[in-house]
Amino acid sequence: MTRHLALVEEVLERFFSLSTQRAATLAPAYEALWKTLRSNTAGGKRFRPQMVMTAYTALGGSDLRSAAHVGASFELLHTALIVHDDVVDRDFVRRGIPNVSGSYRDVAQTAGLSLPTAEHRGMSVAVIAGDLALTGSFRLMERASANPEVRDALVELLDRAVFDSAAGELIDVDFSLYSGMPSIEEIVHMERLKTAVYSFEAPLQAGALLAGATHDVIAALGEFGRNIGIAYQIVDDLLGVFGNEASTGKTTLGDLREGKRTALIAFASQTSEWSSISQLVGDSELSAEDAATVREVLERTGAKKFTQRLASDYADEAVAALHGAGIPQQLIEQLTPLVTAVVERVR
Amino acid sequence: MTRHLALVEEVLERFFSLSTQRAATLAPAYEALWKTLRSNTAGGKRFRPQMVMTAYTALGGSDLRSAAHVGASFELLHTALIVHDDVVDRDFVRRGIPNVSGSYRDVAQTAGLSLPTAEHRGMSVAVIAGDLALTGSFRLMERASANPEVRDALVELLDRAVFDSAAGELIDVDFSLYSGMPSIEEIVHMERLKTAVYSFEAPLQAGALLAGATHDVIAALGEFGRNIGIAYQIVDDLLGVFGNEASTGKTTLGDLREGKRTALIAFASQTSEWSSISQLVGDSELSAEDAATVREVLERTGAKKFTQRLASDYADEAVAALHGAGIPQQLIEQLTPLVTAVVERVR
Repeated sequence: MTRHLALVEEVLERFFSLSTQRAATLAPAYEALWKTLRSNTAGGKRFRPQMVMTAYTALGGSDLRSAAHVGASFELLHTALIVHDDVVDRDFVRRGIPNVSGSYRDVAQTAGLSLPTAEHRGMSVAVIAGDLALTGSFRLMERASANPEVRDALVELLDRAVFDSAAGELIDVDFSLYSGMPSIEEIVHMERLKTAVYSFEAPLQAGALLAGATHDVIAALGEFGRNIGIAYQIVDDLLGVFGNEASTGKTTLGDLREGKRTALIAFASQTSEWSSISQLVGDSELSAEDAATVREVLERTGAKKFTQRLASDYADEAVAALHGAGIPQQLIEQLTPLVTAVVERVR
Repeated sequence: MTRHLALVEEVLERFFSLSTQRAATLAPAYEALWKTLRSNTAGGKRFRPQMVMTAYTALGGSDLRSAAHVGASFELLHTALIVHDDVVDRDFVRRGIPNVSGSYRDVAQTAGLSLPTAEHRGMSVAVIAGDLALTGSFRLMERASANPEVRDALVELLDRAVFDSAAGELIDVDFSLYSGMPSIEEIVHMERLKTAVYSFEAPLQAGALLAGATHDVIAALGEFGRNIGIAYQIVDDLLGVFGNEASTGKTTLGDLREGKRTALIAFASQTSEWSSISQLVGDSELSAEDAATVREVLERTGAKKFTQRLASDYADEAVAALHGAGIPQQLIEQLTPLVTAVVERVR
């Protein structure tokens, strides 16, 4: 896999090199923006390219350069979506370092602009940067295959991924703004659209499609991706409250302070003890002590257990989807550890 | 031309109908967003599709459905760019009615959210909506031709249009934030990138390319488009200060209050009388009386005359580009009135 991902890096490197050179002919500031976008694309786990390459090679694909273009396309889509998501969430930091908005906010503040003006500049540049990454994602996908039919189908998959992610993002914005509590089904639906489609479902299907897999195999991989993607998000939400900060690199206060709508919280809101913590969930100044109280209630009411069970049910669905559609044993063996890794993260 | 534009409308209608139907299967709020995006795409002058269709038909193209896809693609690109530009400029109104940000801000305010929160919601939804329009633009372009080489070249043109517009937008953001005065050349460069490429240059070239025009003709149309696009923007900036509000539908105080960097203002800043108005330009509470003073100075120093001359020089360059490259007389005759219209707007 390392060798396959190195090919993805090569495609991304060439894309950024050419774009940066072209940008330099237009304006120094534009060259700088491309460099920022490049560094915001570096350092990821390349999770989506891995999904593409795994499906592609296990299904007999041998044109690794083509597959690497598909992988790189999904990686750029990921960059586009997180850069714009950070604008929506007014986040200026990601993985502990300034994101696009943060970098440009900081430069503007150093140049003497007020914080609100500097923040708006950061967000403005991030809107532009996300557009460039999104455009790049389509460009790379179009270059993935010389076969017009395959290319059309790949671009169609990418299009659907953008379409579904946008729906998920919109529903998520609505959740965070209105005071009502969405149902568990609504939350799972949102998480599927916002993340599972473009991170699991579409990359696996794209790899299979490029490898010339049958309709049944492609459909089954979609089903697998959807379910494991949902399981992944549910586990992520659990880790956001019960995780080990040292291993997740993410504070376990953030989601509670934000009042993030998750399956965990939606379940708790239906229990008799909810009134004892409802004021704490969403309190932007929640103390570590109060957070401990919330966690106790989430355990006592069974919300934690329910959510763990929900994640493992989706993981089971994912595994079930792998069987019976003619997916080769080799691919099943490569995807099964992924399922274990997703579920094990929270145990 | 009316019949040709009706075909463009058909393509747009079908795109929006299908997308809205698909959105309805995901969430009512998403269906509503697509309806908002559709109404934000309606009512434009369809200027870019006109450029495409004019070049295409005058150069002998006969597959009007294909050309209509190219035209619709540029129209959606226009929607994407203005929706995101409105986020960058914090504008909530366009052509006198709420834009995407404005519609969603208003709904959020009515639902009881504070103004800053409602504004941020409006802008968040506009970020998502612009991404959808941008994606749609690529989708329609990909469907424009069954010939893989032609399609590649068309998508390449669209890609360059996005790339250049993003550069122009970035430079413009920088202009508005830092106190220095850019040079006239820098302003013209920015306006070319931000508007001329995607509004004139690329649509004309795309129409020509689809019609199978020679390299020379495509290059000459690019040259024409670049120059007439720059002339158009310079005239637009003049109208922003000296225009007739009744006919332009645009206040002549806005640009002055914003302190917009234009060739007009950059020229004036180099004259001895600049100090008498430099405090007024960019004064967000500029009165009608003070604006009249600014206009007087802009006339007396020759800034207005210089700028009019600059626009007509670019228009002359545009006309010159039409000759000698083998552009058919019919197309020259169709484009010449455009030149006149651009220059006459300000006389």
